[in-house]
Amino acid sequence: MRNFTITPSDISVERELKDKIDNLTKPKGSLGLLEELAVQIGMIQSSLSPKLNNPYNVIFAADHGVAVEGVSASPQEVTHQMIRNFIEGGAGVNFLANQHNFKLLVVDGGVNANLESVSGVIDRKIAMGTNNYLYGAAMTQDQMERAIEVGSEVVDMCFEDGCNIISFGEMGIANTSASALWMSFLTGIPLERCVGAGSGLCNKGIEHKYNILSKSKERYSGDGSVYDIMRYFGGIEMVMAVGGMLRAAERKMAIIVDGFIMSSCMLAASQIDVNVLDYAIFGHKGDEAGHKLLIDFMKVKPILDLGLRLGEGTGAICAYPIIDSAVRMVNEMSSFEKVQVTKYF
Amino acid sequence: MRNFTITPSDISVERELKDKIDNLTKPKGSLGLLEELAVQIGMIQSSLSPKLNNPYNVIFAADHGVAVEGVSASPQEVTHQMIRNFIEGGAGVNFLANQHNFKLLVVDGGVNANLESVSGVIDRKIAMGTNNYLYGAAMTQDQMERAIEVGSEVVDMCFEDGCNIISFGEMGIANTSASALWMSFLTGIPLERCVGAGSGLCNKGIEHKYNILSKSKERYSGDGSVYDIMRYFGGIEMVMAVGGMLRAAERKMAIIVDGFIMSSCMLAASQIDVNVLDYAIFGHKGDEAGHKLLIDFMKVKPILDLGLRLGEGTGAICAYPIIDSAVRMVNEMSSFEKVQVTKYF
Repeated sequence: MRNFTITPSDISVERELKDKIDNLTKPKGSLGLLEELAVQIGMIQSSLSPKLNNPYNVIFAADHGVAVEGVSASPQEVTHQMIRNFIEGGAGVNFLANQHNFKLLVVDGGVNANLESVSGVIDRKIAMGTNNYLYGAAMTQDQMERAIEVGSEVVDMCFEDGCNIISFGEMGIANTSASALWMSFLTGIPLERCVGAGSGLCNKGIEHKYNILSKSKERYSGDGSVYDIMRYFGGIEMVMAVGGMLRAAERKMAIIVDGFIMSSCMLAASQIDVNVLDYAIFGHKGDEAGHKLLIDFMKVKPILDLGLRLGEGTGAICAYPIIDSAVRMVNEMSSFEKVQVTKYF
Repeated sequence: MRNFTITPSDISVERELKDKIDNLTKPKGSLGLLEELAVQIGMIQSSLSPKLNNPYNVIFAADHGVAVEGVSASPQEVTHQMIRNFIEGGAGVNFLANQHNFKLLVVDGGVNANLESVSGVIDRKIAMGTNNYLYGAAMTQDQMERAIEVGSEVVDMCFEDGCNIISFGEMGIANTSASALWMSFLTGIPLERCVGAGSGLCNKGIEHKYNILSKSKERYSGDGSVYDIMRYFGGIEMVMAVGGMLRAAERKMAIIVDGFIMSSCMLAASQIDVNVLDYAIFGHKGDEAGHKLLIDFMKVKPILDLGLRLGEGTGAICAYPIIDSAVRMVNEMSSFEKVQVTKYF
């Protein structure tokens, strides 16, 4: 299995970076979260003048066998239809990527449709979707290892293009189900509190979803390790994102974490190597019930809270200008020494 | 006195605009606040395809006589020093304005220093700061009316340059004090709960500030009308912002409201003409104690909550990309009709 060697971000620049920020012409601390983000990115880059270069949003897409159980309000065909929409530029993620100069990669990790003819999709199909975990493991060990490898390779493509800040998105009908299961297993929070409306279930739908997931959870008899949970419940696109996150941290890239699904992936990544969290910037606190709990469990504070629940990386990209502001603050503001302003409070 | 005729925003486009948004390729409602903002701006512009043009941030600056009572952690000289910093481009507001292509106007409404030699400052000085309201009215009726007029004229300058979205910032040491008094008088919330740390007072400092403001409030014997509260407690820069907000709404421009001080100005503006609220987008929920209460009182939901407490318009400009995203969503996303995606949830 692919191993990642993630070093913590560089604490040796922290003091000097904070001093630099405290000497900018503003009351100390008055730029709030921008100041915290600037310190985090400076430490990631070992720099007092961090820069953001060539941001990428990578969408991993795959289908989930459990979708046949009716755990999602949306039919499975939406996965492949939306991939075409991403390529054609009409989806939510597209206008945001355009707005903030993100390059967009769409990776077919395991969509249950033939997408070879859709030019622009990166074909890394591992299977025509996962198996239905109500009756057994979603993936084989080989498939899972391959998915981690693919995630890592795609991040390398971005890195080699000069990218040092990356977000991950997903497309995969039924993937809030897998996320809820990952979350419940990896945090110990009861499944009931991890299950939500997904893209738009009514209360009765949520109850049905919970019943299916609860049964799946009961039937699981693996070793409970993070890798086994990932393998058993999938999805392929989520495992790819975990691989991507670990590789991005290994290469000292900042990672913007999108909503519920990507937070579940970051949770899994952090249980493989906790150092990955040094590189993680949580973009958005979503409306999905479990997400708030997960955010609290991970003791992180997402930048935005806009009631988004679309996925695709939209919450992460929406947060990008705030991260950009943080970096500009450090590089563009004058210090009290430079200009004639009495240090004020 | 200058009168403003503010018409409500155009409710006749609301239904069609919501339908348009519901037919974009995403689960209904899944872009959360972006959808609400898009509807608001569409209604402001009477358009199903709203556009944001030439954003401006106007900083009104003036000094407050009450500063001699030690109500602020910062000395009064900071007001004029920071104005030079705005002009030289080294302040917090500058990097944000650069980032988001805002033009910046700096208006000397009543700074207690001679700024004629500072090129780039718009000279509309009404007085060398206000009078100390601990001992009487901050402004005369004439001064207040002139300040409203100046605010209105500056907005006209922006409008004539094609601007249809504007934010206001302020620079004026001690202006959280005036804001707390406006807020307490205009909402009925006890003064104690409206007074906070400002740019950085310790608890003892806050207590002293409260005592000075409480005494000032007790001594006030005017008619309690919104205009009289504005006149009596100032500051000039705040009254200019009120005039600017009313004029911007009259001209059907969207107004991004910054932090505590600008929210107090919007509160006053809304008590002059409640229709101004149709044009108001609250950018940021600040850390100042009174701001959270004021936001709740006005029943509004600011876009961001980043712990900023700098003023200058920084919270408003930080929120701009989110507003821009909302508008891009309406104009750039594909509809279910246009592309082959099953309407999903």
